[in-house]
Amino acid sequence: MAKRAAVIMGSDSDWPVVQKTVSQLKSLGIDTEVHVMSAHRTPEEASAFARDARDNGFGVIVAAAGMAAHLAGVLAANTILPVIGIPMKSSQLEGMDALLSTVMMPPGVPVATVGINAAANAGTLAAQILALEDEELARRLMDAKRQMAESVREKDRKLQEELA
Amino acid sequence: MAKRAAVIMGSDSDWPVVQKTVSQLKSLGIDTEVHVMSAHRTPEEASAFARDARDNGFGVIVAAAGMAAHLAGVLAANTILPVIGIPMKSSQLEGMDALLSTVMMPPGVPVATVGINAAANAGTLAAQILALEDEELARRLMDAKRQMAESVREKDRKLQEELA
Amino acid sequence: MAKRAAVIMGSDSDWPVVQKTVSQLKSLGIDTEVHVMSAHRTPEEASAFARDARDNGFGVIVAAAGMAAHLAGVLAANTILPVIGIPMKSSQLEGMDALLSTVMMPPGVPVATVGINAAANAGTLAAQILALEDEELARRLMDAKRQMAESVREKDRKLQEELA
Amino acid sequence: MAKRAAVIMGSDSDWPVVQKTVSQLKSLGIDTEVHVMSAHRTPEEASAFARDARDNGFGVIVAAAGMAAHLAGVLAANTILPVIGIPMKSSQLEGMDALLSTVMMPPGVPVATVGINAAANAGTLAAQILALEDEELARRLMDAKRQMAESVREKDRKLQEELA
Amino acid sequence: MAKRAAVIMGSDSDWPVVQKTVSQLKSLGIDTEVHVMSAHRTPEEASAFARDARDNGFGVIVAAAGMAAHLAGVLAANTILPVIGIPMKSSQLEGMDALLSTVMMPPGVPVATVGINAAANAGTLAAQILALEDEELARRLMDAKRQMAESVREKDRKLQEELA
Amino acid sequence: MAKRAAVIMGSDSDWPVVQKTVSQLKSLGIDTEVHVMSAHRTPEEASAFARDARDNGFGVIVAAAGMAAHLAGVLAANTILPVIGIPMKSSQLEGMDALLSTVMMPPGVPVATVGINAAANAGTLAAQILALEDEELARRLMDAKRQMAESVREKDRKLQEELA
Amino acid sequence: MAKRAAVIMGSDSDWPVVQKTVSQLKSLGIDTEVHVMSAHRTPEEASAFARDARDNGFGVIVAAAGMAAHLAGVLAANTILPVIGIPMKSSQLEGMDALLSTVMMPPGVPVATVGINAAANAGTLAAQILALEDEELARRLMDAKRQMAESVREKDRKLQEELA
Amino acid sequence: MAKRAAVIMGSDSDWPVVQKTVSQLKSLGIDTEVHVMSAHRTPEEASAFARDARDNGFGVIVAAAGMAAHLAGVLAANTILPVIGIPMKSSQLEGMDALLSTVMMPPGVPVATVGINAAANAGTLAAQILALEDEELARRLMDAKRQMAESVREKDRKLQEELA
Repeated sequence: MAKRAAVIMGSDSDWPVVQKTVSQLKSLGIDTEVHVMSAHRTPEEASAFARDARDNGFGVIVAAAGMAAHLAGVLAANTILPVIGIPMKSSQLEGMDALLSTVMMPPGVPVATVGINAAANAGTLAAQILALEDEELARRLMDAKRQMAESVREKDRKLQEELA
Repeated sequence: MAKRAAVIMGSDSDWPVVQKTVSQLKSLGIDTEVHVMSAHRTPEEASAFARDARDNGFGVIVAAAGMAAHLAGVLAANTILPVIGIPMKSSQLEGMDALLSTVMMPPGVPVATVGINAAANAGTLAAQILALEDEELARRLMDAKRQMAESVREKDRKLQEELA
Repeated sequence: MAKRAAVIMGSDSDWPVVQKTVSQLKSLGIDTEVHVMSAHRTPEEASAFARDARDNGFGVIVAAAGMAAHLAGVLAANTILPVIGIPMKSSQLEGMDALLSTVMMPPGVPVATVGINAAANAGTLAAQILALEDEELARRLMDAKRQMAESVREKDRKLQEELA
Repeated sequence: MAKRAAVIMGSDSDWPVVQKTVSQLKSLGIDTEVHVMSAHRTPEEASAFARDARDNGFGVIVAAAGMAAHLAGVLAANTILPVIGIPMKSSQLEGMDALLSTVMMPPGVPVATVGINAAANAGTLAAQILALEDEELARRLMDAKRQMAESVREKDRKLQEELA
Repeated sequence: MAKRAAVIMGSDSDWPVVQKTVSQLKSLGIDTEVHVMSAHRTPEEASAFARDARDNGFGVIVAAAGMAAHLAGVLAANTILPVIGIPMKSSQLEGMDALLSTVMMPPGVPVATVGINAAANAGTLAAQILALEDEELARRLMDAKRQMAESVREKDRKLQEELA
Repeated sequence: MAKRAAVIMGSDSDWPVVQKTVSQLKSLGIDTEVHVMSAHRTPEEASAFARDARDNGFGVIVAAAGMAAHLAGVLAANTILPVIGIPMKSSQLEGMDALLSTVMMPPGVPVATVGINAAANAGTLAAQILALEDEELARRLMDAKRQMAESVREKDRKLQEELA
Repeated sequence: MAKRAAVIMGSDSDWPVVQKTVSQLKSLGIDTEVHVMSAHRTPEEASAFARDARDNGFGVIVAAAGMAAHLAGVLAANTILPVIGIPMKSSQLEGMDALLSTVMMPPGVPVATVGINAAANAGTLAAQILALEDEELARRLMDAKRQMAESVREKDRKLQEELA
Repeated sequence: MAKRAAVIMGSDSDWPVVQKTVSQLKSLGIDTEVHVMSAHRTPEEASAFARDARDNGFGVIVAAAGMAAHLAGVLAANTILPVIGIPMKSSQLEGMDALLSTVMMPPGVPVATVGINAAANAGTLAAQILALEDEELARRLMDAKRQMAESVREKDRKLQEELA
């Protein structure tokens, strides 16, 4: 059976950004579960979720958090599933705090970090990982890549017309 | 058949760091291929490698590069396989240039970025990804996680003895 | 025959800034071609453009891209023409990511980097390069420099009047 | 009964720095317990320690960790005791990653952060906190402050002699 | 008798942020005194306040200042009470100047630094310190921690309903 | 007649790095003149050199300076020749001061900036510019590019042998 | 005769900030001359102004510029008068580029740098310098310092009333 | 009578750098007094020194401190004399902490900041200030400027010989 994706955000205020991860995953046909869980406010729930995630049929976990962004690390500490971290930009420091807190993990506990606020890319990366054992999903990803290229070409054609 | 891992470095001077990725992968029993390829000096080889990687039995690609580190991005542009980027520290800027050049990818082309010079973690992450369809590898990763914890506990015990 | 300038941007959303490069080039009488091409979404078109640029009569290429800005580097990898890079400011990190991704190139593949969002300056620099073999263009550049100085002097005169 | 201080470090490689915290605490007569525990490798031990710390007679916890330094935050998530964080400098980024990962905590879960590698200061701060209900300790801290001032004055006197 | 908290801000323009410290302290039932005092404009008042704070029944001092934020340090120089520093974000540099000016204190004079503009957390940390000798306050802090966790759980439940 | 290259360094202490620019230029057969001139210590000489450079047969100027690196800007202010800036790393700030002082030029006065200490690349870029009107030089640059690629391929072959 | 102050800005767009320098100087009774002059667009005027400033009765020069802010350095290169630099914040990088370009001057050519956009402080510093030989001005500065302190005390009194 | 210069350092460990300020001042014939005083360890001595400095015949104060460098600010808070700040590089953060802590002063209390560790320049700047009312000193500064230029020219001549 196809594995599912979990998307965990540290605060419901992250939802406007994080929903791009979810819609990207759903548009690729991936069964996705979303939660608000906090590394610092509900540490036990977050740890328990990660510990059981593999047995619960998940193949990848996406974690979004800002500032001293520990969520991805806390999840990664409790699972061998690949954990994708989205560093969220907050009111200060342009997201640099979240980026460093997410990516600079110690040996043995990696977090697959995407760019600051790069929620759609987290969805794409999760899909690329799940596609390892899902040929149909792989085909959808290849289609999306082709369409993305075609869209750039189309924009170039339009530009040529406008400038002509 | 189990999928293979590819490890590409932008320069052979990266080898002292990157070999930790390779030894981590090999210690976990993963069939690994290593190459020197440069996004800027041999762009065609790099692109071609990525384009054919999935058909050639690879399940994940690790790319290590420093400074304006474009290698992971160039590979990711040419494949739907998950690409893991290791930002390499060079003589200037403490690796911050490589980190930003690797992680801040545009929508549609994610790179799963690990910490600066975090070569062992890149190996672990690659293994976590390949373990999605390899139950035996998953078990080895769980063992490693347990041993890592046990090693910390052992160090704590030693410290208690020393301080007693 | 006078050589042409190429201006490539990674996304059509860069156009509001990049058009300053184009208008600067056109105001100096330089034949200019503009394209949307992406290092990550249409890597082959970008590479092919750079490979053929010299034979197609171009003397200089300007590349504008944001975030992990690989476009200038990808073009420079495929040509011996001077490539001018404009690091584009995006929603995060004030353009520092694009600046480092553009300027910190490895030995053998330089990118002539201008300031963040410095699109007009990219046009001026391209013109300065093309003026090497175009005495008429050189004269126009010298005129522009003189007018620029005169405009500063004029502003100083106005200030003196206002403060008098 | 006087409360105790706990000092937790994420790795035994932090010991050369962290022992300054311990010796500072011991020189002030504070009963101190030291442990190696990792937010990412032994998350359960770390959480359990923090949860039980108050009942076990601790009045303050000092946590030292580098890179994506989550240890202080993980402890703070599990206790209402004040948690002091020491951001440890590691091989990259001058300790800026650890500083931001330690200090930028979300509302409700503060970490009292001291400077990068400022292990002695963490000891002093812990003592200042414990001195709230320990008049004798307060007096020792005031003595230390006076001696510190006297030592600066002594250095100034020496300098005057040398330069005379 | 329960000890009081002092909250000092460098400028009355800090009040919109700093009042979160005060309301957090008051909501936890802590007797709190607030002042505008400047390390650079009224250095003597600031020093005198810190020197007498302990004798005046204070148990902890919170200091908020921006830019070259010396206020917390000036207070800490004149007392053995724990001093909590809030680095205030001002018009430039995203608060990084205030963070470094507050946290990087020399040996012997620590400042317990919280995140940039983290006024509520400064209140929580002050309360955690005062709770060392106030069992009732400790209970209120534990209640607040439980409610915080419950609030996250509630948000997760709502999200599940919305997405169902 | 072929145009010459000028290489100006702000201090003779820059020579160990800057000589790579000169040897790169000479190895490509470019007539090169080298000077020590300072934007701050000999501002008139620097300005005069730039003002007369075009009439003196120069086609491009390379300027190397560290810290508040004004040299490239001062030269660019006085000529319409393309000016290439090498930000030199000095004892502090990893060369970031020199990078920003060199690249962030105001409209109308661009500096073609290469990476920190990227002296060889400055030579290559200067050659790429001079090659606009020198077909023989263009051919040498293409040869160098091919050899660079071949050298990477050779290193990959060696690696394969070593790992076999 | 009392020495005059010169205020030079690199662009008339700096005026909204720089006029605070001028009004601060005038409010202290200092004869002040203001100019728009550019290190890069009118380098000769700027140099000449600095060269003659002392003979023209100036005692101090204030220079305001943004980005690669060379103006203060260019002036300082041409005079032994103290030159005060105001790093101006522009659209990118929060003024950090201007700060480093202004303050990191080479040995022998100092610039007395104030904070980013700190135009009023530049005026105060200029006055402090001119007050060396102007007892009346010194008295006005001492008055201003006392009023500044009184204003802080007044704000504290108001706050006490509001919170009472 | 000629005014004197005061040089204050926060720690005697700053002496190897700060002695360049002193020797620069003495080589220019300026009567100089040097002290170790700490903003955080001997705040009263530091404040008192600044308060009395003008009456004691000083015309300028140089302050050197690292990390959260408050010394220059504390001195400036207590005098209307111009205070020159030298941000000292310490073991972490490349001196950026000291630079921001020194330069980003609030309105009304400027610090004339020189570059990181720029001790000789602090001496030169102090001399330029004192030269306002000392024509003989002004002449020595002009001589030094000329010699500095001549030294650059001499190095250029040597380079020409070596390369000939």
